[in-house]
Amino acid sequence: MFRPQIKILDCTVRDGGLINQWQFSDDFVRKVFIALSQSGVDYMEIGYKSSEKYFSRSENGAWKFCSEDDLKRIVGGFEKKLKLSAMADIGRIDHEDIPQKSASILDMIRIACYVKEIDKAISLAHYCMEKGYETTINIMAVSKVLEKDLDEALDDISKSDVPIIYLVDSFGAMYSEQIHFLAKKYFDALPGKELGIHTHNNQQLAFANTIEGIIAGINRLDATIYGMGRGAGNCPLELLLSFLKNPKFDIRPIIEIIQEIFILTKAKIEWGYHIPYMITGILNEHPRSGMKAMAAKKLPNLRQFYENLRDEIPID
Amino acid sequence: MFRPQIKILDCTVRDGGLINQWQFSDDFVRKVFIALSQSGVDYMEIGYKSSEKYFSRSENGAWKFCSEDDLKRIVGGFEKKLKLSAMADIGRIDHEDIPQKSASILDMIRIACYVKEIDKAISLAHYCMEKGYETTINIMAVSKVLEKDLDEALDDISKSDVPIIYLVDSFGAMYSEQIHFLAKKYFDALPGKELGIHTHNNQQLAFANTIEGIIAGINRLDATIYGMGRGAGNCPLELLLSFLKNPKFDIRPIIEIIQEIFILTKAKIEWGYHIPYMITGILNEHPRSGMKAMAAKKLPNLRQFYENLRDEIPID
Repeated sequence: MFRPQIKILDCTVRDGGLINQWQFSDDFVRKVFIALSQSGVDYMEIGYKSSEKYFSRSENGAWKFCSEDDLKRIVGGFEKKLKLSAMADIGRIDHEDIPQKSASILDMIRIACYVKEIDKAISLAHYCMEKGYETTINIMAVSKVLEKDLDEALDDISKSDVPIIYLVDSFGAMYSEQIHFLAKKYFDALPGKELGIHTHNNQQLAFANTIEGIIAGINRLDATIYGMGRGAGNCPLELLLSFLKNPKFDIRPIIEIIQEIFILTKAKIEWGYHIPYMITGILNEHPRSGMKAMAAKKLPNLRQFYENLRDEIPID
Repeated sequence: MFRPQIKILDCTVRDGGLINQWQFSDDFVRKVFIALSQSGVDYMEIGYKSSEKYFSRSENGAWKFCSEDDLKRIVGGFEKKLKLSAMADIGRIDHEDIPQKSASILDMIRIACYVKEIDKAISLAHYCMEKGYETTINIMAVSKVLEKDLDEALDDISKSDVPIIYLVDSFGAMYSEQIHFLAKKYFDALPGKELGIHTHNNQQLAFANTIEGIIAGINRLDATIYGMGRGAGNCPLELLLSFLKNPKFDIRPIIEIIQEIFILTKAKIEWGYHIPYMITGILNEHPRSGMKAMAAKKLPNLRQFYENLRDEIPID
């Protein structure tokens, strides 16, 4: 597949940091930055932009905050071949925490929100655009919302200036048919806007669903190195680079950094396909109960875990 | 997805045995048999039917041979709720090794062959049908054959009495577009015959491609518990059972046996997504070089491994 409009955003550090509270060494983040630059990836999402009023640096690594000092420490001295992005969650950042683009190394701020927060997200996105950033809205957890509410949210976005909207499978619950259905819905509701896709791998469908998104016309693709990401992880960048035939992409620096760093990292901080995440995925639930099961010293009885979650018996 | 015609064949022991030369304990195989029976799976492929003239029992476990004594030892005394299948490879079994159906616990013999062996496969399939077995032909490695040769093979099969033909992605190299293309080709060339699909997980697409096969109209689906199978493994049965809405299927016995046996088994004899298998998959190559890389005490330089395989520099 070669479509020149396609752009890849790698969110290894941002989504991967959800596993270890962004406790990455500078060396790790810098090596990811260099490998991504060499591979031709268009954007590196290096973390969240969050307010230190709401989160402490003692509990969270630098990439929960993405201060300019943190960013300079990593990319200072290197030629910047890719753009840098940070994600902002509604309610976890205030307007005054976002500097003018001219004072920042960041190029893009992506606003993550639930359907019910869409007006706040549009407002924050407009603010970021005024400051000079490229901006997107990523609507989370749409596999659990009433279609009417989603349609209303899309209608609100269609009237906004926000140019890029992401289809997000937060729970790894979607099959190809849901991807095609939602991609068509988003395109129909959002004329003139660009779409992106962000998937999770609970059912081993993150890469497959990203391909289906591409077939449906989506041009902004999220991926992470070796699939690193919360719970079952994300669409593996190495697979996506190999699928895309765009001459600007090179898989080899990614193979290299997987061998140098990620195989070992995965042995230490676990992500990927595991039955607890599969169960939350097939039941279209937030992965938090799966993460709790995986973090326990001994796995709970998984048949019971499935039955409780299916029957909505509280498991915490 | 609920389509009453859909039938699942579990080939955990047959394909999984390619990893460990079928060195499974009787207890393991019996537990798989019981769990599959409880889950509503239609067929269990318990191994290969091979000749002891060509393979020794000192190097291969019982399920390389599937003698009637071996089979009785496992399923004797249980109510047989599912059908038993064995696979036969061309050139590794002779006609006289196949008993009358009336003298066998097996219900089905699936003939695996390459395109160039199609006439031998049809002949052996006809022989098995005369003996009283359900019979299929599984054409391997079709991602590497000239389309003209595949068309000829399908034409030969269309003239045969063999009722079921499998689309096989031996190298885990196909994307959804290849699945749809080939499924259409097979259906067009084989009027009146049923299709099956067997996938490998080198690119994390085994389950996704099985779904696309279903969407394309394929009704015979191969899967293995926890994806166990040679190299990157196969379509995970637990995911497939969850996708299918047929009331006869129950995922819970499979979740149970995964926890009891397969999580530990996977830690001992490795299968699943690993970069060497990904590389053979994206390059559309036999997984043997990936298996060699994985079996080494230390992984080879993977960037070099990729470049050598891509440039067809011999790596053995």
